[in-house]
Amino acid sequence: MTGAFSFKVESTDGAARKGEIATPRGVIRTPAFMPVGTAATVKAMFPEDVRAAGADGVLGNVYHLMLRPGAERVAQLGGLHSFMNWPFPILTDSGGFQVMSLSKLRKLDEIGVAFQSHIDGSRHLLTPERSMEIQRLLGSDIHMQLDECVRLPCSEAEAERAMRLSLRWAERSRAAFGDQPGRAVFGIVQGGESKALRIESARAVASMDFHGLAVGGLAVGEPQHVMLSMLETVMPHLPEERPRYLMGVGSPDDIVEAVSRGIDMFDCVMPTRAGRHGLAYTRHGRVNLRNAKHADDPAPLDRESPCAAARDYSRAYLHHLMKAGEILGMMLLTQINVAYYQELMAGIRTAIEQGRLIDFVAQAKEQWAKGETGV
Amino acid sequence: MTGAFSFKVESTDGAARKGEIATPRGVIRTPAFMPVGTAATVKAMFPEDVRAAGADGVLGNVYHLMLRPGAERVAQLGGLHSFMNWPFPILTDSGGFQVMSLSKLRKLDEIGVAFQSHIDGSRHLLTPERSMEIQRLLGSDIHMQLDECVRLPCSEAEAERAMRLSLRWAERSRAAFGDQPGRAVFGIVQGGESKALRIESARAVASMDFHGLAVGGLAVGEPQHVMLSMLETVMPHLPEERPRYLMGVGSPDDIVEAVSRGIDMFDCVMPTRAGRHGLAYTRHGRVNLRNAKHADDPAPLDRESPCAAARDYSRAYLHHLMKAGEILGMMLLTQINVAYYQELMAGIRTAIEQGRLIDFVAQAKEQWAKGETGV
Repeated sequence: MTGAFSFKVESTDGAARKGEIATPRGVIRTPAFMPVGTAATVKAMFPEDVRAAGADGVLGNVYHLMLRPGAERVAQLGGLHSFMNWPFPILTDSGGFQVMSLSKLRKLDEIGVAFQSHIDGSRHLLTPERSMEIQRLLGSDIHMQLDECVRLPCSEAEAERAMRLSLRWAERSRAAFGDQPGRAVFGIVQGGESKALRIESARAVASMDFHGLAVGGLAVGEPQHVMLSMLETVMPHLPEERPRYLMGVGSPDDIVEAVSRGIDMFDCVMPTRAGRHGLAYTRHGRVNLRNAKHADDPAPLDRESPCAAARDYSRAYLHHLMKAGEILGMMLLTQINVAYYQELMAGIRTAIEQGRLIDFVAQAKEQWAKGETGV
Repeated sequence: MTGAFSFKVESTDGAARKGEIATPRGVIRTPAFMPVGTAATVKAMFPEDVRAAGADGVLGNVYHLMLRPGAERVAQLGGLHSFMNWPFPILTDSGGFQVMSLSKLRKLDEIGVAFQSHIDGSRHLLTPERSMEIQRLLGSDIHMQLDECVRLPCSEAEAERAMRLSLRWAERSRAAFGDQPGRAVFGIVQGGESKALRIESARAVASMDFHGLAVGGLAVGEPQHVMLSMLETVMPHLPEERPRYLMGVGSPDDIVEAVSRGIDMFDCVMPTRAGRHGLAYTRHGRVNLRNAKHADDPAPLDRESPCAAARDYSRAYLHHLMKAGEILGMMLLTQINVAYYQELMAGIRTAIEQGRLIDFVAQAKEQWAKGETGV
């Protein structure tokens, strides 16, 4: 548990980078996908299975954890790593995104966001300083600044107001974080769909003393081409020596496109949420196990998967479990999806190292699109 | 997958027996507790974890499986073992108990039970012959005769009617089972709370060519002393060379009492259902993790448990997971409970072998009753 936080790029392929984030809790191989452990659990998975699937780090949600079980309680119990039995790196978001999407009666001003809990109606105030304090109490390895994330589309004026507020909160967040050896704090680029705002935000955030830079406010309703265009706009302004994190993204296709544009880190509920709803991500695209066509299919999802759950159970069985509302169905599909995402990231890293990312992406897309007709 | 079905008693201690049921799918060490795999899954557990917990066999429910996914479908897919990825022994009930407790608009006569599915209202007829056919299609290792189980208390006349019908169905079930090498069919003793009826039923069932004898219609609402008194009444009439199975039982206390009276096999939803509702079974008795007193407790459920889930997670964390409705809470507590039940059975078997069952039971009861005050 000693050592510094550091990032190094080991190889590049076009704009894509393969590298390593070192933390006292272990290494995060990049490009990395971090499964989301919302309320101190990657839903429906044992932590040892998250690790076995290949995940180097997970994400925790400040909004959920501050409300239940409470940051002070987690600190008292020894911190989030010990609490959730995950001794490896944890990144925490700032709480800002979910305050805006989940809480009731929120009121945002310069100071922060006052809101009522969606669980019990209790009143809370989330400021940049309080968010940093919560993340410190949790013992997070990578803290995120508090920002304001607007839904897209929105007016340029609204995007600008939120972007400027986020910059002021970035400064307050950075100051509140202080100096915590071995831990990092990341700034977040905002600016909606406006190239000019995105560039201004990127330059300003990059000029602050953050250990990494995140792109926020994307994958919030806009088409993929808008997201990718914003990434292309922002990337040249994010220093190469720091890790770049695209928050809340995304589908396998979003990921390969963003990696190709220089993104190093991702998180998303997609693999876990989809799994709980009967959707599997595989090399051959997305499979909806609730579909009646699987009822009599003895084939597993992927005979060649490194994930035993994808090999050892028939589609007919997975279909049955989902139709019957059985927890095991959610457990198996979550595991299959988290494993596929990690398999994808491993493939991406190897492809970058070998200078064949373009081919890798083309092949992956072809397999997804072809589905299983060719199998 | 060759070999005969056999049972041998290896040692006795008072009325209690330690032994082995051998099947082509593997050995069931007795006294045995079989977790319930209702709809082709021990709820919220991976099959490999059920095995790792020490279970030699599981139970499948004909009622659930005939309705969804359907016995013919399971047969087409290679049978229940392959379907649910459990290559070890499976005992199936006859469907009778759940037809009476779950289905709609049921009509029982000499032929069988006509009923409507609780899932989709579809109409079905369950006869002794159809139940045997379903169990054969599933590929069950131990089939149960179709019987009629009445709720207690009930009138003696009603108990007698159901007992006599069950005897006639026993004969039809036995005939329909025929000769299936490596597989077994068990008869079921009924008779409500009447000693005379129980004795008559036991003698009649024992006189038929069943591979094992079950006691049914207990643990259906009556006090424990009634159940134990019925067991004491029935036991002398059940041949020693065949395994004796107490259906649907029960709590750890029920189990040690029934073992002491000569029972070899148990099944019950208690450990799995309780786990999904936040109740843990431990050496120190039952613990309700939903109770607020656990919110700040860093202690695990049992530091000395052979089950990692009981050692590696704090009560505070388990409490949090249950309060937050997290699937992982159900997964961990189910695993802890299934493991504790298997640990109990292993302790019982060793105690019988060493001729110290009375001491073992006294100590277990003392620990349960003392709870954790002495820890």
